[in-house]
Amino acid sequence: MTSTKEIKAEILAIGDELLYGQIMDTNSHWISKELDKIGVRVVRRSTVGDSRESIMAAFAEAESRADIILMTGGLGPTSDDLTKPLLAEYFNCEIALVPEALEAVRSFFEKRGRELTPLNVLQAHLPTKCQYIPNELGTAPGMWFEENGKVWMSMPGVPHEMKKLMSEHVIPKIKEIFPLPTIYHKVIKTVGIGESWLADLIKDWEKNLPSHIKLAYLPSLGHVKLRLTAFGEKIEELQSEVEMKIGEVKPLIDKYIYGYNNETLEEAIGILLKRSNKKVALAESCSGGYISHLITSVPGSSEYFQGSLIPYHNHFKNILLDVENDTLKEFGAVSEETVIQMSENIRKKFEADFGLASSGIAGPAGGWAEKPVGTVWIACAMEGKTITKKLQLTQDRMLNIQLTGVAALNLLRLSILGKTE
Amino acid sequence: MTSTKEIKAEILAIGDELLYGQIMDTNSHWISKELDKIGVRVVRRSTVGDSRESIMAAFAEAESRADIILMTGGLGPTSDDLTKPLLAEYFNCEIALVPEALEAVRSFFEKRGRELTPLNVLQAHLPTKCQYIPNELGTAPGMWFEENGKVWMSMPGVPHEMKKLMSEHVIPKIKEIFPLPTIYHKVIKTVGIGESWLADLIKDWEKNLPSHIKLAYLPSLGHVKLRLTAFGEKIEELQSEVEMKIGEVKPLIDKYIYGYNNETLEEAIGILLKRSNKKVALAESCSGGYISHLITSVPGSSEYFQGSLIPYHNHFKNILLDVENDTLKEFGAVSEETVIQMSENIRKKFEADFGLASSGIAGPAGGWAEKPVGTVWIACAMEGKTITKKLQLTQDRMLNIQLTGVAALNLLRLSILGKTE
Repeated sequence: MTSTKEIKAEILAIGDELLYGQIMDTNSHWISKELDKIGVRVVRRSTVGDSRESIMAAFAEAESRADIILMTGGLGPTSDDLTKPLLAEYFNCEIALVPEALEAVRSFFEKRGRELTPLNVLQAHLPTKCQYIPNELGTAPGMWFEENGKVWMSMPGVPHEMKKLMSEHVIPKIKEIFPLPTIYHKVIKTVGIGESWLADLIKDWEKNLPSHIKLAYLPSLGHVKLRLTAFGEKIEELQSEVEMKIGEVKPLIDKYIYGYNNETLEEAIGILLKRSNKKVALAESCSGGYISHLITSVPGSSEYFQGSLIPYHNHFKNILLDVENDTLKEFGAVSEETVIQMSENIRKKFEADFGLASSGIAGPAGGWAEKPVGTVWIACAMEGKTITKKLQLTQDRMLNIQLTGVAALNLLRLSILGKTE
Repeated sequence: MTSTKEIKAEILAIGDELLYGQIMDTNSHWISKELDKIGVRVVRRSTVGDSRESIMAAFAEAESRADIILMTGGLGPTSDDLTKPLLAEYFNCEIALVPEALEAVRSFFEKRGRELTPLNVLQAHLPTKCQYIPNELGTAPGMWFEENGKVWMSMPGVPHEMKKLMSEHVIPKIKEIFPLPTIYHKVIKTVGIGESWLADLIKDWEKNLPSHIKLAYLPSLGHVKLRLTAFGEKIEELQSEVEMKIGEVKPLIDKYIYGYNNETLEEAIGILLKRSNKKVALAESCSGGYISHLITSVPGSSEYFQGSLIPYHNHFKNILLDVENDTLKEFGAVSEETVIQMSENIRKKFEADFGLASSGIAGPAGGWAEKPVGTVWIACAMEGKTITKKLQLTQDRMLNIQLTGVAALNLLRLSILGKTE
């Protein structure tokens, strides 16, 4: 374990539009994640409006608590935007034209065939104590201050501009200036098992983790992510320790792991299908196109996605998908018998290796005692067999659609892997 | 204009998982919007971690700035969760069992067939100075404090639990206790026109708005919302003034208005289809099921949605949707000729009044000079005619899918209304 002093950061979002709830501040969350990755501890996040008093107070409070102060917003050229003049006041310096910044703004407008206005010229005037950080994606530059061993960075509130400034300037500068612990993260992505069951399966392994490797459970709709974070000196050592620990836990939960780090379930399925040169087609009823949308969100999905049919009524399940009328009458649209025919027939119609089908009562209306809202059948047909699963979900229509999507994709994943027992 | 003193609020989110970027705080944004609607001014939002020092400091700072302090998070039964003991410390009182709260927790678990654990019993122990506010959706109760003319409310961080407590208890209590200005909001929802063009069409109307009616432009993907906010004394007067102003602006932008307040484009289309007793079916290629998903997200959509086909390859466009092979060869899948056949054939296949179709290059790969990534054709077929539209979108796959969805739904809306000139 390293003995480096903890480096503290505060994140400040500036703008009335945030406090009034007109715009959601996603910047502070993103910055938190990036700082966490390099071992900087965020101790406070604040949002203040466009008022001199609030902003000056927030500057002083942040300085009293943190080594690094990162600000977003309040940098527009209009008079409501106060960040720049208040930074000059706080650091007791003038605002002057930075020729390099003027050149950047001019070239920004030239490329877009627009003329420079006097307001835009103002954006090239910066506090004399700051270092000018060019913003290639917009007209408000970044401003970097170093004073009394603390660093400050002011960035525009437009997310993609802020992200580029953070990744290319702020993070590298912070790493250079502050002695940070070496940290290695890896996320194991699981599906098809709840957090407490997962915790139960790996509790002995978790208990034996060394104290410099931390485990976090990050649950989201139908998924649980396990994040391993190792702290130490040498990145190669941490990486091999984490990989060893993953090697130990993998056999315990192998069936549930679909990927690592940022990989999504639909991307993981795409890789499996491409690798085995197999194709998939879907017959969606209650999920109404959602699963097809997930699959086709992945670049290159046309290599393995053949197509889908969404027959939203019994009549079309019969005439377009050849589900037998007797089956629909006897067992109903929401039944194992119906999803089996749907999955097998869609597989043939689209000349696919896998046929995935859903039928259920998404709600909020339409349920009855025997088949309440949230009852869903899913099936996956493949060469020689068809597997099915019944889900008993919630009262919420959108949640039912999303949970059906996760369960169906997982059924497909297990079918491709031949792990359907 | 009312002369009521401005009532100030501060929102405090508590939890290490927020500062580390593991969970995104969407609560503070939602609370901001709700307070803005009733004329309470949010002056600060803060996020602090699970540390005694930070939380106590945040309490004192919030008290110095605001009349209303709303907190979320830090209410779990485990020892990391500090909000409750620190509130007791801050208000200098004991924590004691509240029998009514115990009964609520017991019944919560009983309904779910689970047993009460000692940790759960702890959740029914509350600071003696607080008023117990039942949380029907979870086990951590709300706690309401009134002291020195200020009110405090602590709520769980789980969004749907917090929202119910806010809507049913906090907002009504705040309205009762504080003299708030009378405010009337109405949002006009538009589609198919950019913010600056819209602003240009209504600039004279905007200039003539009285000073107590404010206009805000709220743009989002393919949509622009216009929010009118009137301040005054009598709600009926404000309402009729705003309606009058909307009556004036409506003729200028009628074609672009699809609804008001929270209505979505897909809901508006559902209402139009139900009212005219018409049905729709879709043939989606580049949008891959996304438009069907939007339509079927609306409760009751089975009344007017017949179904969809997603033929992702030319072969299936031909064999399953009868698009002529000659058309596909001569003009390509991404062409006006192809989407016309797709929309007309899907309309017949699903016995629908409207047939909506998309075909394009979503990207990131697959474009060429003549048809770069982002080239999309959409069509809507109806009795006697078929209308088409070419879109030139972006380099981003997901953005292209979403923008195709908005444009196609708008084409359908205009077709139902007979406004396709």
